[in-house]
Amino acid sequence: MNQKLTPSELGANPSVRLSDDGASVVIIDQTLLPRETKIPALQSIEEMYDAIFKLRVRGAPAIGIFAAYCVAVLAAHSAARDFTAFTDELRAHIRYLDASRPTAVNLGKQLRRMERVLGAQSDITTAVETLQSEAFAIHREDIAMCRAISEFGVTLLRDGDGVLTHCNAGPLATSRYGTGLGPILMAHERGMTLHAYVDETRPLLQGARLTAYELYNAGVDTTLICDNMASIVMREGRVNAAFVGCDRVAMNGDAANKIGTSGVAILCKHYGIPLYVCCPSSTIDPNCATGDDIVIEQRDGDEIAEMFYANRVAPVGVKCYNPAFDVTPHGLITAIITEKGILREPYDLAINS
Amino acid sequence: MNQKLTPSELGANPSVRLSDDGASVVIIDQTLLPRETKIPALQSIEEMYDAIFKLRVRGAPAIGIFAAYCVAVLAAHSAARDFTAFTDELRAHIRYLDASRPTAVNLGKQLRRMERVLGAQSDITTAVETLQSEAFAIHREDIAMCRAISEFGVTLLRDGDGVLTHCNAGPLATSRYGTGLGPILMAHERGMTLHAYVDETRPLLQGARLTAYELYNAGVDTTLICDNMASIVMREGRVNAAFVGCDRVAMNGDAANKIGTSGVAILCKHYGIPLYVCCPSSTIDPNCATGDDIVIEQRDGDEIAEMFYANRVAPVGVKCYNPAFDVTPHGLITAIITEKGILREPYDLAINS
Repeated sequence: MNQKLTPSELGANPSVRLSDDGASVVIIDQTLLPRETKIPALQSIEEMYDAIFKLRVRGAPAIGIFAAYCVAVLAAHSAARDFTAFTDELRAHIRYLDASRPTAVNLGKQLRRMERVLGAQSDITTAVETLQSEAFAIHREDIAMCRAISEFGVTLLRDGDGVLTHCNAGPLATSRYGTGLGPILMAHERGMTLHAYVDETRPLLQGARLTAYELYNAGVDTTLICDNMASIVMREGRVNAAFVGCDRVAMNGDAANKIGTSGVAILCKHYGIPLYVCCPSSTIDPNCATGDDIVIEQRDGDEIAEMFYANRVAPVGVKCYNPAFDVTPHGLITAIITEKGILREPYDLAINS
Repeated sequence: MNQKLTPSELGANPSVRLSDDGASVVIIDQTLLPRETKIPALQSIEEMYDAIFKLRVRGAPAIGIFAAYCVAVLAAHSAARDFTAFTDELRAHIRYLDASRPTAVNLGKQLRRMERVLGAQSDITTAVETLQSEAFAIHREDIAMCRAISEFGVTLLRDGDGVLTHCNAGPLATSRYGTGLGPILMAHERGMTLHAYVDETRPLLQGARLTAYELYNAGVDTTLICDNMASIVMREGRVNAAFVGCDRVAMNGDAANKIGTSGVAILCKHYGIPLYVCCPSSTIDPNCATGDDIVIEQRDGDEIAEMFYANRVAPVGVKCYNPAFDVTPHGLITAIITEKGILREPYDLAINS
């Protein structure tokens, strides 16, 4: 029988957990971050649906864990008198939750797993216990997966390294450690001094709102930058490695991740900086031979044209690095055009200045 | 004697011009763009100072032209009865205006030029006429400079080209055509079909607010993107050339421009796309041997952490391209780390998926 997760297993501020009495699912409301850390305890199916639908819980693995706990809590609260009524009620709840975000792969996957466990039971008391155990198992498996990724990643870091990351692949989106942030958080936990540079990640600012929040709160030396500042921090020698998460990997290694990741990768190559993609092996898609087979989600243009966040987007206290200009090395410039003509390499501009 | 600029010289919606009666300087209030196009006519020294100080007029060349017209208008309004009182009054106005933005090079440069012209006069009537003529000359010279840059730039474009630009180097910041936007606007005027991709340019969003406004209003097919989307539009073959302005060029051709330009340049090199830097020859700095000699302005981190614009940042109607993800080619990925291990080139992920 799987026992509930200990505080040491969960780590500080888990994004999702079961309450000590097993009667509610406790989450960090991610829609309020970084301004407010609200930790609601959810008991009703309506609150649970809402939490997924309104992105209070986000990140595919975190949603999967949350959904499993929801089923366990709903089972514990059931007022059904016989086992048939109990399973009918729970199956209806599962279908309802599954509709909260149809494109979240882990949501359906973990709900189906809970439903299979339910189907193997024959009495209410054992079912309630077994469903709770299964939810714990799902959570533990995610933590173990993140821990394994992080352990591998730590071997690629050295004390004093600067590390750049893009978007959010941290504990909020997964479980403890996260994927892309896992190596950074684990290295920090082990006493390594790292300097994290966080791309704000337009248009939805997951880097500013969530990654900066997670790293800053964990005590990592964290500096927020605009996406277009990645080049200058690399040029200034501040970045020794880039770590990112990933949504899908093709069989040739092409990796789809939050918009802008390919730009980070090209900058890394230019500056001779390693780029590490961190992801569960389930992210590798045997149906995609190359990146060309990966369909890119197109989103509403108003996300760009209208600001998602009205005011403060970053945690209070986090450092921001805000150079207004950068220098483009002449080798990258095809021509300099002045009113006197079109100048090309080799540039010796004495006669034109 | 320089006559006032004709509508055909000025083009549509000039950022700065003298009113027909010579009694006021007419500007587009750039702080209200793109939400509102307000065209105030300024007559008092206080309004003029304020216009520069509060960035209603911005862009070094535009500020210089504006300041010259201000001196001409203030001369015309002078109530001085003798020439000494007239020159004393104007010199005081010039010093006051010069203090409105100490770091704007063109402001002081054009004010000193107007002051030299003033010093060569001996009666009020002639001085008023000559100062107005000098302001027209300054404006005409800037238009000619932008026109020459644009003419050279147009030769690098072909019908149907996609063109990416970063920040704002358009007519609002200069005079007609602009520098970085000049080739695009001139080519469009001549009937060429171009597709402009505009980086929004965080943190202050000059691309979204000003460049998208200028190109869209000129009738150019314009698509706004977040800075981190430049890579995907290049990868998709949408961009044939990138045109940017420039703040300072070192003698070896290294060019300082709005933060993020070097990143655009590295992407261009990676994708085999030409990057053209457009600037007045006065931008070439004989005192800078290389880009390392160029000091980069560091700005307040709150520009990143707190959103400059609360709501809509782009003109209503402009297209936005908003892919949520991009694909990073495997050749740019140093390693893929899953819970099963660290995978490196050549990637054949069959056993890990």
